Amino acid sequence: MIRFDCDYLEGAHPKILKKIVESNYEQTPGYSKDEYTKSAIDKIKKVCKTDNIDIHILVGGTQTNTTVIASALKPYQAVICVNTGHINVHETGAIESCGHKVISVDSDDGKITPLQIEQVAKIHFEDEAPEHMAMPKMVFISLPTECGTNYVKEELKEIYNMCHKYGMYLYIDGARLGYGLVAKDTDIKIDDLPNLCDVFYIGGTKCGALFGEAVVIVNDNLKNDFRYYIKQKGGLLAKGRLLGIQFDALFEKELYFKICKQAVDLAIKIKEAAINKGYKLLYNSFTNQQFIILPNDKLKELSKEFVFFKWKVIDENNTAIRICTSWATTEENVDKLIEKM
Amino acid sequence: MIRFDCDYLEGAHPKILKKIVESNYEQTPGYSKDEYTKSAIDKIKKVCKTDNIDIHILVGGTQTNTTVIASALKPYQAVICVNTGHINVHETGAIESCGHKVISVDSDDGKITPLQIEQVAKIHFEDEAPEHMAMPKMVFISLPTECGTNYVKEELKEIYNMCHKYGMYLYIDGARLGYGLVAKDTDIKIDDLPNLCDVFYIGGTKCGALFGEAVVIVNDNLKNDFRYYIKQKGGLLAKGRLLGIQFDALFEKELYFKICKQAVDLAIKIKEAAINKGYKLLYNSFTNQQFIILPNDKLKELSKEFVFFKWKVIDENNTAIRICTSWATTEENVDKLIEKM
Amino acid sequence: MIRFDCDYLEGAHPKILKKIVESNYEQTPGYSKDEYTKSAIDKIKKVCKTDNIDIHILVGGTQTNTTVIASALKPYQAVICVNTGHINVHETGAIESCGHKVISVDSDDGKITPLQIEQVAKIHFEDEAPEHMAMPKMVFISLPTECGTNYVKEELKEIYNMCHKYGMYLYIDGARLGYGLVAKDTDIKIDDLPNLCDVFYIGGTKCGALFGEAVVIVNDNLKNDFRYYIKQKGGLLAKGRLLGIQFDALFEKELYFKICKQAVDLAIKIKEAAINKGYKLLYNSFTNQQFIILPNDKLKELSKEFVFFKWKVIDENNTAIRICTSWATTEENVDKLIEKM
Amino acid sequence: MIRFDCDYLEGAHPKILKKIVESNYEQTPGYSKDEYTKSAIDKIKKVCKTDNIDIHILVGGTQTNTTVIASALKPYQAVICVNTGHINVHETGAIESCGHKVISVDSDDGKITPLQIEQVAKIHFEDEAPEHMAMPKMVFISLPTECGTNYVKEELKEIYNMCHKYGMYLYIDGARLGYGLVAKDTDIKIDDLPNLCDVFYIGGTKCGALFGEAVVIVNDNLKNDFRYYIKQKGGLLAKGRLLGIQFDALFEKELYFKICKQAVDLAIKIKEAAINKGYKLLYNSFTNQQFIILPNDKLKELSKEFVFFKWKVIDENNTAIRICTSWATTEENVDKLIEKM
Repeated sequence: MIRFDCDYLEGAHPKILKKIVESNYEQTPGYSKDEYTKSAIDKIKKVCKTDNIDIHILVGGTQTNTTVIASALKPYQAVICVNTGHINVHETGAIESCGHKVISVDSDDGKITPLQIEQVAKIHFEDEAPEHMAMPKMVFISLPTECGTNYVKEELKEIYNMCHKYGMYLYIDGARLGYGLVAKDTDIKIDDLPNLCDVFYIGGTKCGALFGEAVVIVNDNLKNDFRYYIKQKGGLLAKGRLLGIQFDALFEKELYFKICKQAVDLAIKIKEAAINKGYKLLYNSFTNQQFIILPNDKLKELSKEFVFFKWKVIDENNTAIRICTSWATTEENVDKLIEKM
Repeated sequence: MIRFDCDYLEGAHPKILKKIVESNYEQTPGYSKDEYTKSAIDKIKKVCKTDNIDIHILVGGTQTNTTVIASALKPYQAVICVNTGHINVHETGAIESCGHKVISVDSDDGKITPLQIEQVAKIHFEDEAPEHMAMPKMVFISLPTECGTNYVKEELKEIYNMCHKYGMYLYIDGARLGYGLVAKDTDIKIDDLPNLCDVFYIGGTKCGALFGEAVVIVNDNLKNDFRYYIKQKGGLLAKGRLLGIQFDALFEKELYFKICKQAVDLAIKIKEAAINKGYKLLYNSFTNQQFIILPNDKLKELSKEFVFFKWKVIDENNTAIRICTSWATTEENVDKLIEKM
Repeated sequence: MIRFDCDYLEGAHPKILKKIVESNYEQTPGYSKDEYTKSAIDKIKKVCKTDNIDIHILVGGTQTNTTVIASALKPYQAVICVNTGHINVHETGAIESCGHKVISVDSDDGKITPLQIEQVAKIHFEDEAPEHMAMPKMVFISLPTECGTNYVKEELKEIYNMCHKYGMYLYIDGARLGYGLVAKDTDIKIDDLPNLCDVFYIGGTKCGALFGEAVVIVNDNLKNDFRYYIKQKGGLLAKGRLLGIQFDALFEKELYFKICKQAVDLAIKIKEAAINKGYKLLYNSFTNQQFIILPNDKLKELSKEFVFFKWKVIDENNTAIRICTSWATTEENVDKLIEKM
Repeated sequence: MIRFDCDYLEGAHPKILKKIVESNYEQTPGYSKDEYTKSAIDKIKKVCKTDNIDIHILVGGTQTNTTVIASALKPYQAVICVNTGHINVHETGAIESCGHKVISVDSDDGKITPLQIEQVAKIHFEDEAPEHMAMPKMVFISLPTECGTNYVKEELKEIYNMCHKYGMYLYIDGARLGYGLVAKDTDIKIDDLPNLCDVFYIGGTKCGALFGEAVVIVNDNLKNDFRYYIKQKGGLLAKGRLLGIQFDALFEKELYFKICKQAVDLAIKIKEAAINKGYKLLYNSFTNQQFIILPNDKLKELSKEFVFFKWKVIDENNTAIRICTSWATTEENVDKLIEKM
């Protein structure tokens, strides 16, 4: 079976593994106070073109979202996101488990609009007795979204401005940031992000690392004592250099963007083949995730050789599947899939 | 100014106050272990026609909802309610502050349907990897709802059956239970409730008491160690007899239902007058809360003498107001209002 | 039976009840936005001789401690108190339920010393990796303590200075503040408190009210959005005027201090009688709580007519009991007890 | 510099790394549903000589303790441990952040006694109003302890029996389990543990893995829905096979015990040398951690070539240091240290 069901099927890019193996016998201090982590942080600061950011590398996505949000909000404050937001549906209530309401707004394509943010904000801030309601204090978006869609720079600016208008933070979940930034449908570059949000993270797990997510804190208010939160939430890895080594490798000569670009190219090849063969797309994604609507017969046939993620039942005859590519996807397997489609 | 904006404007029914004054110099044990509380509990068991229930009287509504829900759910479990549910919008995220997700479903009239419950349940229980999502384990409804609407016995049965089907608890918030049960649009009686839900509460604050909400626990699974939760959540009143005295008075010769009936009769008088004068209603309520759509000019004029709660802007010319009656509402004031309408 | 086991056996001082009864039919806005509460707050500001404090009246002690501490601490911060501190032993883990560690230090008499505070602070702030530990950020003391002991002004100053030295808040639990301030063994006056701590509360429940605790916030950092915390923790009483009325009555013509003084005088009468009769005291208290060591035979005999709180088994033949007086204690009953002792 | 300051200075045992590299291009399902994890679990069941256990592999120790304890306790329940317990001092209040009180008892050597457990239990369970206190429901011990000391089978039995007597769970933190079980001062074998506690974990991070802790749940009450807790607490690794591969390697031909034995042998060599040279030990440890009291002059001299962990200031002239060995410690470096000592 050839699997396309997610982007964490294989291990890590070989350059990462090589570094881990090479450094295996070195003795380094624990808890991310090692030189590899320092080097990784320096490289990330360089691509972000600013020193005025704090960077911490955590192990996984849910842990990262929980730690960032819990550190930013007071107990009565809430975070706004779209209904399909990862924190709203796929983290087992981790945000709520830290005491915070997730206020969700409907979205067809995984994107939030400034207007939606304002509507939620007004309900709260224009009420005569707002203390009876959880106060929205943060907006959570994913770049790219869970639906593979993207924001452009102008959209992000408007969202960020709206956050400012109501004293809210903007947090960007970048679990697949690399795939988003190399996509053709956005003009956002990584060095734009420190100017367009308060905190974001650069996803490693789904972009070529064994694991690891690099949190980039832009807003000074959010920088203080962040390591306490990491430790309390169980994210302070004893052998923290493993995180440093991986991001050090990923940001060596733009490896991160190269492998994401290669995966996206293969995904687009599949997308275009699907369109050519007359299949409809559920979302118009330019990233490594493609959402193709297949007749159930076709799906059944393909499922003999390929594994997909069943995203959504469209009707009794059709199902939308998600296809993911990654650093490890081969052109050979993509071609096999296209041929069978 | 004559106020109709809520049902907690005055103190308590005089029979309650009298009992508090009379008992003032008595010495009783603290924390609801007194004889007044025992007597109140006995009376509630009698009207509920069962001994197989545990009863605890707490101080206020948010505290009660928080305590009941926190005691019933495990850390990864969630509660389902309508978008207008009190726990979803007017408790400053108290449920989330105890770690639990509130899953809301849309509703036009404050009521939930069995189908809506099933849809939420299926998303979770039919998923291959449900542990990535908060598990819905309780359904929260209000009787009557925040919109003054009511359930009938058949509806409640279907909801309860649906809860059973998916192993979920049904919890009824009865902040205004008295007003709901005496309304003409339901056939539910208080002694039906132990057969139609797992836990409910009989509201005192909005139904004639100074404060106090009597939690009635039906399901044995929810009875254990409940006092620990009350104490931890700050609801174990030192002079707990105050709660006992009030409910003892309210359930003496059906005072609770009599004063609620009287308030509802006055509310219906207002409702009928409004209809006769050609005003539209936002919801068709048969309880002590009435939701009348007024032209803004009329509202402005009436606001010189009366205080209402502005519920919702309908359009640029019309506003829906909420009018509440209570044990203390006088026919004289109601007639004044009707005259000016 | 004549009960001396606690100071919340009866209702409220008659002047309080009278005000509640007189105001019963008045219509006032809910949630402590009424004129009675305003008046109570003004009176408390006057006795505290400062306008630069925020005052909120909550229902009970555990709720108050939870709300104040949860509002002041960030998720990784802890509160220091003595092992007998109310938050450490008698609140069912309410502080921990809001996520905060309670760091306790040993004490024989319920008092903490500046040195003990410094020892805890140093362990944290002088460590090379403090983020692995909860950060002490608040010191919690009771005035008077659970053991009836008191601090003098100089002691309080030193404690407060030590808090400042390590950037910690000082919070004074004043559940029995009235009894403490009128005691002979302290020179602290209520208007000293705004200069000697960051936040304190004036206890009502145990000092003549039906219920109610007035939180006085001194430090500006702790004032912001406090009502959100009250609401979320279930402490925002719908008929909030009940709290206002009670404190308005208590601070009318120093009633609060008069009734506490009277209770303390009776407690001292008992204490002196006990000493004269040769009984030992567990703690040397000058407040309304007395801790007398009785031979078990004597205790058994007295228990036929009187109820005490068994505080501690001293040895197989002796038990320390706690005797409390209150506004409602009569000289007649005190004399009966003394006679039988 | 040669570091002896902790046991997580290097990467992983080469057999682990080899397996990770070899499997790098394989496609496996995420979240620990892969075959490597299955194989690891089977091997652990085999060494534990029972199938009636549930095994889940998490990433790190704080995460593991938090997840296990949060899953076992209800919101009002507490966990008992010694004052030096890892959860009490070195997890930034992670247990409290999940709402649970940690009740600590004093200990000189890191071990708890059945009597201490009973004393805490009696305070709660023999009180007339236990609901005012957090209920002790779990005992947490470390095997070996933070001080390198060990329990023998008879001690563990007595502790477990005492837990049973009061309805409490026994949880064993095995961060360094391997080192403890191969030590000469205990007769406990890994297959004894399922009979002597309710849940324990087999530490990987400090025993040769890159990271990973294998939780072994014995008590059926604790097995249900455990994956929800893992996910919510951020411990469900996307590329979960990394955890499986590591434990599969560690439990292949007893590698786990072999590398721990080798580390312990080197530690004992250091210990004996220290004794021979006349140094005192702070604790009498037979594990990979040794606690040696050095004159400050000697410590300064040694610190030019070696890194230790400064454990405790003994007096103005002497300091207790902690020396750790691990799978990667070489006899050559140990001999260098001994020579310089």
